[in-house]
Amino acid sequence: MTTPRCACLLIAGVGLLGGSLAAAVRRRNLARRIIGYGRNAARLQAAKTRGLLDHYVTSPSELPADVEFAVVCTPVTRIVEDVRQLRPHLPPRAIVTDVGSTKGTICRALAQAGPAGPWFVGSHPIAGSEKQGFEHADAELFVGRTCVVTPDSHPPDEVVERVVTWWRDVGMVVERLSPVEHDRALARTSHVPHLVAAGLAASLDPRDLRWAGTGFRDTTRIAAGDPELWTAILRENREQVRVGLAEVVAKLRQFDAALATDDAAAMMRLLAEGQTLRNQLPGTPSTAEE
Amino acid sequence: MTTPRCACLLIAGVGLLGGSLAAAVRRRNLARRIIGYGRNAARLQAAKTRGLLDHYVTSPSELPADVEFAVVCTPVTRIVEDVRQLRPHLPPRAIVTDVGSTKGTICRALAQAGPAGPWFVGSHPIAGSEKQGFEHADAELFVGRTCVVTPDSHPPDEVVERVVTWWRDVGMVVERLSPVEHDRALARTSHVPHLVAAGLAASLDPRDLRWAGTGFRDTTRIAAGDPELWTAILRENREQVRVGLAEVVAKLRQFDAALATDDAAAMMRLLAEGQTLRNQLPGTPSTAEE
Repeated sequence: MTTPRCACLLIAGVGLLGGSLAAAVRRRNLARRIIGYGRNAARLQAAKTRGLLDHYVTSPSELPADVEFAVVCTPVTRIVEDVRQLRPHLPPRAIVTDVGSTKGTICRALAQAGPAGPWFVGSHPIAGSEKQGFEHADAELFVGRTCVVTPDSHPPDEVVERVVTWWRDVGMVVERLSPVEHDRALARTSHVPHLVAAGLAASLDPRDLRWAGTGFRDTTRIAAGDPELWTAILRENREQVRVGLAEVVAKLRQFDAALATDDAAAMMRLLAEGQTLRNQLPGTPSTAEE
Repeated sequence: MTTPRCACLLIAGVGLLGGSLAAAVRRRNLARRIIGYGRNAARLQAAKTRGLLDHYVTSPSELPADVEFAVVCTPVTRIVEDVRQLRPHLPPRAIVTDVGSTKGTICRALAQAGPAGPWFVGSHPIAGSEKQGFEHADAELFVGRTCVVTPDSHPPDEVVERVVTWWRDVGMVVERLSPVEHDRALARTSHVPHLVAAGLAASLDPRDLRWAGTGFRDTTRIAAGDPELWTAILRENREQVRVGLAEVVAKLRQFDAALATDDAAAMMRLLAEGQTLRNQLPGTPSTAEE
């Protein structure tokens, strides 16, 4: 591609996701310039030195006038505030999106009636890692992953289409969901699994760590994630997380009842339920037959 | 190494572990001949065709007279019976071990007073995969992993030492534990995580699978394991599994209480407990600083 799709891209928050987005955009030549925005000038300078940014600002008033597309990659609790601060300093034709793991609160707070841009359209690229910081930036982080775009009824179709195309251009499979439906689904596939992994890890006596194999390692991998970031995500979506968590605890109680009565058939049935679901995960090779 | 340590190795049960052991022994030239033992001649023939076995028998009476070392790699519920069937057909100086994921029941059943071999010493190489069958055999499966050897007081030291050396020779770090202590520890690091992964997977509505990311994938990976094999493991160790499971459920209830009251400090504390434990896992790089 010789002509970048976007003259000037703004990335607010240059952590793992913001940094990976910058790297992905660079590799695919999707923007002529990438501007970083954040609070910590030293971090932004380091990202620039690494070649991820062309330029950075620490105040919205310093933004250049030609920003076409802005992606807010700050923690979920800061997204609403950051969009509100940036919007008055962006040209009306600019489009703003985010990468927040919850969408209900954010999209409600940023909904806008009326015909004036810049428009906000919520996004959740389901990609990431337990690692943090642009030092772990990966230009291929988004490839083949799903991005959920959660527009409300206000932005014109072409604005939503531009956001969809943006994520497709960095390699993602894009789906649309309402913010509420997004939060219900992600509670089950992401937020509750995080709690469960953390609960499992927190229950282990450190003296027993030496007996942990690859099963324990994988099952608890996401528990290494940043507690502050995850507390924010869980609080934003706590009603749905509680419903999903109760379902998992109920299933574990069924296991306990089967163990208590040494009910092999019940144990087998419960384990088979889990296996069947797991083997349906896209891209998972089914278990070989013995 | 030009002189194999063992003239004739017997592997009973040529699945993933038995097959991987054969492959590891071949690559390291640890035995002159590898004999397979099992019920299914077609599977044994296929393992022989693949080069994992030199020969196989389906009846203990057909065993050659020079077996020095026997490793029983059959499912946990069959190990005691298989060792009892094999022992009378092995020379007295032969040493028998196993790869069972539980040790209490097996070691109690096979304990022998008196000076007559062949001796049995329990082993649990903590290595494996959710995959099954020698088709997935991996000569490096054991490298760097821990093997727990659980001798009772009967076998002479040199017999236990031979078993320890055997696992070291395929690349393992060997530790000794009593069978009871092994089962307590492994309930926490392996059996309960399996239940939790299965419970998490079984709780998901298949329609939500498309929203699953790498977190859900890793957290539920072991749920793909064979339900029959895992039912057997869980039943053998059900008292300890119930204790460990109750601890995890209690932790999840603490999370739920924190969510119910929107107690950010409590959520953060619980997540930090999980993160701290996870970052102590040997070989886990600590989370980068933001």
